[in-house]
Amino acid sequence: MSAFRTLQEECCEANGLLQKLHLVDMTFGNASVMDRRRGVFAIKPSGVPYDALRPRDIVVLDLNGQKVEGRLRPSSDTSTHRRLFLAFPETRAVVHTHSRHAVAFAQAGRPIPCLGTTHADFFRGEVPVTRPMTAREIRRDYEWETGGVIVERFRKLNPSEIRAVLVRGHGPFVWGGSGKEAVEIAQALEIVAEMAWRTLQIAPQASLLPALLRDQHFLRKHGPRAAYGQPAS
Amino acid sequence: MSAFRTLQEECCEANGLLQKLHLVDMTFGNASVMDRRRGVFAIKPSGVPYDALRPRDIVVLDLNGQKVEGRLRPSSDTSTHRRLFLAFPETRAVVHTHSRHAVAFAQAGRPIPCLGTTHADFFRGEVPVTRPMTAREIRRDYEWETGGVIVERFRKLNPSEIRAVLVRGHGPFVWGGSGKEAVEIAQALEIVAEMAWRTLQIAPQASLLPALLRDQHFLRKHGPRAAYGQPAS
Amino acid sequence: MSAFRTLQEECCEANGLLQKLHLVDMTFGNASVMDRRRGVFAIKPSGVPYDALRPRDIVVLDLNGQKVEGRLRPSSDTSTHRRLFLAFPETRAVVHTHSRHAVAFAQAGRPIPCLGTTHADFFRGEVPVTRPMTAREIRRDYEWETGGVIVERFRKLNPSEIRAVLVRGHGPFVWGGSGKEAVEIAQALEIVAEMAWRTLQIAPQASLLPALLRDQHFLRKHGPRAAYGQPAS
Amino acid sequence: MSAFRTLQEECCEANGLLQKLHLVDMTFGNASVMDRRRGVFAIKPSGVPYDALRPRDIVVLDLNGQKVEGRLRPSSDTSTHRRLFLAFPETRAVVHTHSRHAVAFAQAGRPIPCLGTTHADFFRGEVPVTRPMTAREIRRDYEWETGGVIVERFRKLNPSEIRAVLVRGHGPFVWGGSGKEAVEIAQALEIVAEMAWRTLQIAPQASLLPALLRDQHFLRKHGPRAAYGQPAS
Repeated sequence: MSAFRTLQEECCEANGLLQKLHLVDMTFGNASVMDRRRGVFAIKPSGVPYDALRPRDIVVLDLNGQKVEGRLRPSSDTSTHRRLFLAFPETRAVVHTHSRHAVAFAQAGRPIPCLGTTHADFFRGEVPVTRPMTAREIRRDYEWETGGVIVERFRKLNPSEIRAVLVRGHGPFVWGGSGKEAVEIAQALEIVAEMAWRTLQIAPQASLLPALLRDQHFLRKHGPRAAYGQPAS
Repeated sequence: MSAFRTLQEECCEANGLLQKLHLVDMTFGNASVMDRRRGVFAIKPSGVPYDALRPRDIVVLDLNGQKVEGRLRPSSDTSTHRRLFLAFPETRAVVHTHSRHAVAFAQAGRPIPCLGTTHADFFRGEVPVTRPMTAREIRRDYEWETGGVIVERFRKLNPSEIRAVLVRGHGPFVWGGSGKEAVEIAQALEIVAEMAWRTLQIAPQASLLPALLRDQHFLRKHGPRAAYGQPAS
Repeated sequence: MSAFRTLQEECCEANGLLQKLHLVDMTFGNASVMDRRRGVFAIKPSGVPYDALRPRDIVVLDLNGQKVEGRLRPSSDTSTHRRLFLAFPETRAVVHTHSRHAVAFAQAGRPIPCLGTTHADFFRGEVPVTRPMTAREIRRDYEWETGGVIVERFRKLNPSEIRAVLVRGHGPFVWGGSGKEAVEIAQALEIVAEMAWRTLQIAPQASLLPALLRDQHFLRKHGPRAAYGQPAS
Repeated sequence: MSAFRTLQEECCEANGLLQKLHLVDMTFGNASVMDRRRGVFAIKPSGVPYDALRPRDIVVLDLNGQKVEGRLRPSSDTSTHRRLFLAFPETRAVVHTHSRHAVAFAQAGRPIPCLGTTHADFFRGEVPVTRPMTAREIRRDYEWETGGVIVERFRKLNPSEIRAVLVRGHGPFVWGGSGKEAVEIAQALEIVAEMAWRTLQIAPQASLLPALLRDQHFLRKHGPRAAYGQPAS
């Protein structure tokens, strides 16, 4: 049995959850999970249907992109995931989807504004959009450079407070502390995108949620003073 | 066994119904039910998934906010529910959701106008929006003050005829005579919000339903001359 | 056993189909079926959930509105159905829903324009909206007068070619040759309303389908030269 | 047993998939599959519900439109399918649906612009709309001429790179190398239409995906340098 079986199982489960929660159509999306101690990450193989996926199909690679386990070819987006694992050291899982409302904002080239408390419960501010990629970036190492424009966009943002981004003309990438958590953030992102989209239809000039109220909600669920959910037992 | 078991069961069932009717995503929403005679109310625990919820998990509190039954931490919105129970003496159940079309109006800061008979069958007039909360209200006792702006908004409205409100930038709170009824009103609110939203997309200046027709529908279903449904046996 | 059992069964099945096809929420909608030879029609009882409905619950009335079978109170919309059976002698079944896109047009006070062949396959021209009802009509005999404004709207229209109408500020009524057919037309109406609604969002000035093409589609499926489906065996 | 059983089975399965993927309502849509070697194609019979369809119900015709197998009347759209098989020699399957977002663009008379990578993964450029048909075309041989305006629209387009079209005021026709593939393209078209529709609602002037990025995605999945999915074993 694989030395990475636990990691493969967590990754397999996260990919299956993407389909169960209707966050992906066809084979548009993928989840990866990292083992920080061993310096490797597990990712969905390319083009395999979610319901046929078994833990042993999951590909494991090191941070140089070398395969260390698995017979199949990894997701075509692997280099983007890898670059995020390198740049955001607290991230243990990355999820990419083409969920429909988040994609609408990505295609519009508009960030998702923080218009309400549902957004603020998950993201401390707008979910940003990357800049257009240059011809050189597209031609040279497209998936790696996709990660590059994400990292560039976060130079002045905290990836622990805004755990999602929209790649312009493409779709969302999100991250979290576990496969399951990253999928939940991808789900929250799609819900929040839908709510913002519906709001803008009836109020094109809708006001942002005041920063004080935004932080009240964000900090109620995250950080040292969080009071949401049940205390760890 | 708990002395509040019947109340806990009614509350548990109402919370389960929220998920079954697709009115809540993830753990965004909660239902509470009050026993007016004993002066206590039962409410969902914080952050617990709806399908894992059992009657004994439901928390019971008195109207001072003191827990009288249950091991878990109550919903973070508990103080809002409590304030509504105190202010609206005919209310036996309160429901809070982040249902998507109702949230769109809340985020837009627009009341849901009464544009048709579906609305008038449930609400005698527009569903109002609360005013923005002050910095002081947000900082001091946020959930209690959220109840406060609702109560303030109803000073000149009848909470038995308009059994719902939109908290600005947040989402709907609704109330009714039982857990099941409050959930039904939350469902009707979301349907009515969707219809209004769709109408405004193709008729931004759509006319309100004339008051006479609105009352014809409301009073056909509610009040002493109601002629809808089957007579009580 | 009831002398009207076959009629009650057809009516019960049509009402159940309304729910199965997601054309009604809660208890918003009803189907009736007429026996032209005996001069009676069967209709849903008021406020009864669709999935609890049994043939013996269905109420049977004559064309004067007198109950001839059944213990329950008939739908509050019964007089509207009755007026349509009286005015449109070829109609054997009437269906009323609050389906969401059709309601959006009714609330907007806009007819559903014939923008494509899906529409033309079912309706030979736009689906019209009734005029606003007068205070006198609302006060006197509201449900009967609702039928009256429908009949008035069809003075110059052929109810065999346009088998649906939008009651302004309310929702659709449709009719057909059997309970099942009327439900199918209600389903087609909602689909066609959704398509028109989506079209108008991206082309507010969208052109009507040319009359020649509209008739090509309508007459391919209806009337003496119909060539759709399988020949009757 | 039919000499065309394998073809009938592939066609039956493709038609069933249309319903399973929610691409068709009622009986609005059909799939056909061709056997290039024998010069015949199999197509859905007219007006038969998808879930009642069995392989032996599928009609087989030659390229002159003569029936060579089957008791039932073929789809009323058969001549359109036939014309596409004649004009596009690499096509093995044709699918027609009335899927709702694609129809919205067809009714609007607007092509689906390539606004994102989801689109570019399937179609190398916009999905075009046919010109209005003339009165003569509609009157003479409507379904054959519907194929004619599609073929005309592709005079300067490559039907292997853009495997879909919108018939103006009607809906999409798509094609592919197998029944299953054509259905997948019909599914991708509807998703891409929905994404474009949602994007245009919040960015009416949204930019096209740059051609370089579009081709990067299209060629990653199609053609000799494709690197998506698993290598053929």
